[in-house]
Amino acid sequence: MKELVERLYPVCRSITGNGLRRTLEIVGEHIELAVSEVPTGTPVLDWTVPREWNIRDAWVKDAGGRKVIDFAEHNLHVVGYSTPVHATMPLAELREHLHTLPDQPTLIPYRTSYYAETWGFCLRHDVLESLPDGDYEVFIDSTLEDGHLSYGEHVIPGELTDEIIFSCHVCHPSLANDNMASVAVAVELAERLAATKPRHTYRFIFAPGTIGAITWLARNFERVDRIRGGFTLACAGDRGSLTYKRSRRGDAPVDRAVEHVLRESGRPHRVLDFSPYGYDERQYCSPGFNLGVGSLTRTPYAGYPEYHTSGDNPDFVTEESMADTLETLCEVVAVLERDRRYVNLSPYGEPQLGRRGLYDSLGGRSDTKQAQMAMLWVLNLSDGDHSLLDIAQRAGLPFATVADAADALRGAGLVKE
Amino acid sequence: MKELVERLYPVCRSITGNGLRRTLEIVGEHIELAVSEVPTGTPVLDWTVPREWNIRDAWVKDAGGRKVIDFAEHNLHVVGYSTPVHATMPLAELREHLHTLPDQPTLIPYRTSYYAETWGFCLRHDVLESLPDGDYEVFIDSTLEDGHLSYGEHVIPGELTDEIIFSCHVCHPSLANDNMASVAVAVELAERLAATKPRHTYRFIFAPGTIGAITWLARNFERVDRIRGGFTLACAGDRGSLTYKRSRRGDAPVDRAVEHVLRESGRPHRVLDFSPYGYDERQYCSPGFNLGVGSLTRTPYAGYPEYHTSGDNPDFVTEESMADTLETLCEVVAVLERDRRYVNLSPYGEPQLGRRGLYDSLGGRSDTKQAQMAMLWVLNLSDGDHSLLDIAQRAGLPFATVADAADALRGAGLVKE
Amino acid sequence: MKELVERLYPVCRSITGNGLRRTLEIVGEHIELAVSEVPTGTPVLDWTVPREWNIRDAWVKDAGGRKVIDFAEHNLHVVGYSTPVHATMPLAELREHLHTLPDQPTLIPYRTSYYAETWGFCLRHDVLESLPDGDYEVFIDSTLEDGHLSYGEHVIPGELTDEIIFSCHVCHPSLANDNMASVAVAVELAERLAATKPRHTYRFIFAPGTIGAITWLARNFERVDRIRGGFTLACAGDRGSLTYKRSRRGDAPVDRAVEHVLRESGRPHRVLDFSPYGYDERQYCSPGFNLGVGSLTRTPYAGYPEYHTSGDNPDFVTEESMADTLETLCEVVAVLERDRRYVNLSPYGEPQLGRRGLYDSLGGRSDTKQAQMAMLWVLNLSDGDHSLLDIAQRAGLPFATVADAADALRGAGLVKE
Repeated sequence: MKELVERLYPVCRSITGNGLRRTLEIVGEHIELAVSEVPTGTPVLDWTVPREWNIRDAWVKDAGGRKVIDFAEHNLHVVGYSTPVHATMPLAELREHLHTLPDQPTLIPYRTSYYAETWGFCLRHDVLESLPDGDYEVFIDSTLEDGHLSYGEHVIPGELTDEIIFSCHVCHPSLANDNMASVAVAVELAERLAATKPRHTYRFIFAPGTIGAITWLARNFERVDRIRGGFTLACAGDRGSLTYKRSRRGDAPVDRAVEHVLRESGRPHRVLDFSPYGYDERQYCSPGFNLGVGSLTRTPYAGYPEYHTSGDNPDFVTEESMADTLETLCEVVAVLERDRRYVNLSPYGEPQLGRRGLYDSLGGRSDTKQAQMAMLWVLNLSDGDHSLLDIAQRAGLPFATVADAADALRGAGLVKE
Repeated sequence: MKELVERLYPVCRSITGNGLRRTLEIVGEHIELAVSEVPTGTPVLDWTVPREWNIRDAWVKDAGGRKVIDFAEHNLHVVGYSTPVHATMPLAELREHLHTLPDQPTLIPYRTSYYAETWGFCLRHDVLESLPDGDYEVFIDSTLEDGHLSYGEHVIPGELTDEIIFSCHVCHPSLANDNMASVAVAVELAERLAATKPRHTYRFIFAPGTIGAITWLARNFERVDRIRGGFTLACAGDRGSLTYKRSRRGDAPVDRAVEHVLRESGRPHRVLDFSPYGYDERQYCSPGFNLGVGSLTRTPYAGYPEYHTSGDNPDFVTEESMADTLETLCEVVAVLERDRRYVNLSPYGEPQLGRRGLYDSLGGRSDTKQAQMAMLWVLNLSDGDHSLLDIAQRAGLPFATVADAADALRGAGLVKE
Repeated sequence: MKELVERLYPVCRSITGNGLRRTLEIVGEHIELAVSEVPTGTPVLDWTVPREWNIRDAWVKDAGGRKVIDFAEHNLHVVGYSTPVHATMPLAELREHLHTLPDQPTLIPYRTSYYAETWGFCLRHDVLESLPDGDYEVFIDSTLEDGHLSYGEHVIPGELTDEIIFSCHVCHPSLANDNMASVAVAVELAERLAATKPRHTYRFIFAPGTIGAITWLARNFERVDRIRGGFTLACAGDRGSLTYKRSRRGDAPVDRAVEHVLRESGRPHRVLDFSPYGYDERQYCSPGFNLGVGSLTRTPYAGYPEYHTSGDNPDFVTEESMADTLETLCEVVAVLERDRRYVNLSPYGEPQLGRRGLYDSLGGRSDTKQAQMAMLWVLNLSDGDHSLLDIAQRAGLPFATVADAADALRGAGLVKE
């Protein structure tokens, strides 16, 4: 996964344009991607698909002709969606177009201006401080023209048509944890899932933040009723522990599965209530849709000093962290796949498990095994009101033990779905 | 407010009579009062309006003709509703009619006997202890005759006919905190509210405790369906911090507004569950009415040593405390006035706030302002189920910030009531 | 009660047979028992009544003819439901039929094999260790033949036909706390209840564990709708404090009554959530029945080292503990008997208690008595939604105080059932 992050990192992405296309292309080398191109001007919910932005070069030269800011060195140097410019101006005038982080003087900030036409550069504050007064030549070779907004989808069909979605924003330029680490984790998860015959259908969405999710929702209005829940994936690779932010519903299937897995796993973690800020859960959980989509991150949105700066580079993410995020997602998927509601077909008294070979024959012992306890719990709570996950939580047993017990009972004809 | 307390303090009030009338007269000099006079014998709910009690003079003289207890010195000296008496009796016999506080020997207690005919005097325990044996001449010049029970009302009409009530008991003689301080706060609150054009209608009720509230309820049976909630106000001026006792409902609009204001304000405070004891919330919250009426006090009912004694004099209350109670009530009223339920008219995805001038155009920054967060929360939760107060509590934002955000969104046509 | 435990202790009980019959006979000397005999082969729910087991003698002799294990010395020595055997075999072969507790080498374990035909002996581990190699003569003079399963019932009819059940398993051989202590407590409770004219009907069930409860349920299918709740009683006499395990419902009348009594009593105690393991609450709380049956024990199921060993002998139980269990049950029964829902007939405002002699006439005092508070609470909450127990819990008052207040109010015609 780290390799994929390193390969994707240098690409200059934005919410439209060739960097975004190139990103989808690279992802498509690993998993089959259906790429959609939505024309500029297309109305999408309350929004309109913006013009497409592409950039070839940009720099600021001092009076001596030396490049003091150079897009070729780092693509964060240019404010996203900067309009083209070629002019010479004194530092005082230029300063109005320069963005720095005075408290983090060695880091380049990430800034965009998608919906208000302007241009600008981002740079280290210490570099700005070292610039002498005088005239500077400013050059941005960009285009902002009618074109398309691109997004990609990968679907793993299941037995059921209801869908679990994993949504990654792919609009950020050279930021590693936010969000190429999540892209790498999603690709690996998709590959693992494809090797199974899942019950649910799984959809991976790689789209620019906000406008991409809004475009996808606008074009899939009919589909949303089938979405059982899902995740926005972000910040999947930093060294922090996992953070799960609940969906707006708070107790959607995904919420309950994640919380069970995190608790049972013993992993250090935090669970936060929904708030209408952060990543594209803002869109999926807007009140009209109210999909059960939560957000899984390691350190969450804006929670680390390197967030949205040049400090979020490939060194900031680790293979171990991405593997841990991936493993957690696999465990959550396992719960979603196996969770269901059974009905006890022998609800009056306990059925005689012994004659079905499901119970120890020697009585009087007090060290009943977890597997037998799980069977008793499944029988006792399979009244149509409780799912296996409900039962696991009520019993304080691992989900897999309970699901295995349910399989054994179903095999013996004692419960049915 | 302190001045009004000092002016009202010396009046000898009871549940009927001229002291009560004089109190309403003084209040009426500040705010217009509609005074009702309900005749003795009128059936009110399970009760009957009692005979009217008036007292002109009362004393106990020792064998030497010296007044050892004198109503003219302090009106707590006479048990409320004492029947007339003029007799000479030995101390032993007199003692059965004397009430003191052995644990607080320098304070005169407050006692009444509204519904069992008797007479009595209250005095300092140390004075009682100093009385030599011998005969005492006892004189109470009172009348207990058919007359009227008086109460006053002040109404500030609002856009809506639903009412918020503020109810103060005005039957206690010379006790400052209980309840002239509340009367002073209520008068000031009414004056402030009159200067606005409120949405709700506000009704101030100045009535004797228990029988007064019961009389008012009996005569306003048809009106109670319009009462959205309210307060009994008592002990509004002592140096203790605020105490809110919830209505019987526990989550009535007033309960929620007060709790939000107290929590957000950072004021030290206590919130107590309803109990069927205390002030006239007992009547307003009886199960047949079950109005959402809570009780706001500083130190609550029977919670301070000076309670119902001569220690509750004007020195016991402070202008600062009354001002703080008043300010709290104003903040609560502001919540009640502005709280309402909006519906997001653009519920699918977030509406594009930027093009409506409601959102910063420069993206990538992580220091979103509270005002923008409030807009996102209002949009996200305005689904018909959540009021602005619900949203403020869920978001952990001050109510006013949320209400301002709702105003901005309504102005932009994004939400409607 | 201790005497009854000592008398019942030596009887060799099992889930069928003459020891069980003898136990019911002894119980029947104290309280009238209706004994049912259900033939082998009778289908009961998912089970079948097994063959009847009786044993007369059993021993193991060493090569020298010395009895090294002797059923006559302790009936735990034989695995319950052992098939007859008479054979000589080397120790190595015999060992497969021997059960010990290596961690508790001086105690004989309790083992059974009701549904898998085998034979076996239980013995102290230190005795096993001392046995020299060589041949041993093994003898079990038992029969496993068609016969009957026996259980006994004692009913105390009440005004109402709804029933509270107390169920004791009576299948364990020489184990004192588990469960002869509970039998003794149940007998005493039944005698006390018979001396009253109860409102509810009380049914005491003395049946073998699991198959006995299942048999009773199968034969009383029509009755279960009348069961308002009840208890399985077990481990009623050890020195530990009380443990209540809630019914599957969690808030059944019995659950709430026990929790209130335990909390108010100040007894150290534990309350556990239901789990589908333990005693016959497993059957009563199976999802098809879901009766509100909890389990009252002192130290719970498998919670003490002597559990299911020869250490659970009459010395292990105390009269004091059994008396405390009994007293608790009596208090719970008192709550169940008196708890009901009243309706305030004067719900608008407080009724005037004073003129009915229910309230102190002298006003102004702040030390209102608990009895008066209880009346105010009953009036305030008797709206059809709250039972007296609800009110006691809400008010933080002892149930009896609240029930007495309700009686006084009913006497005054202020509330009705």
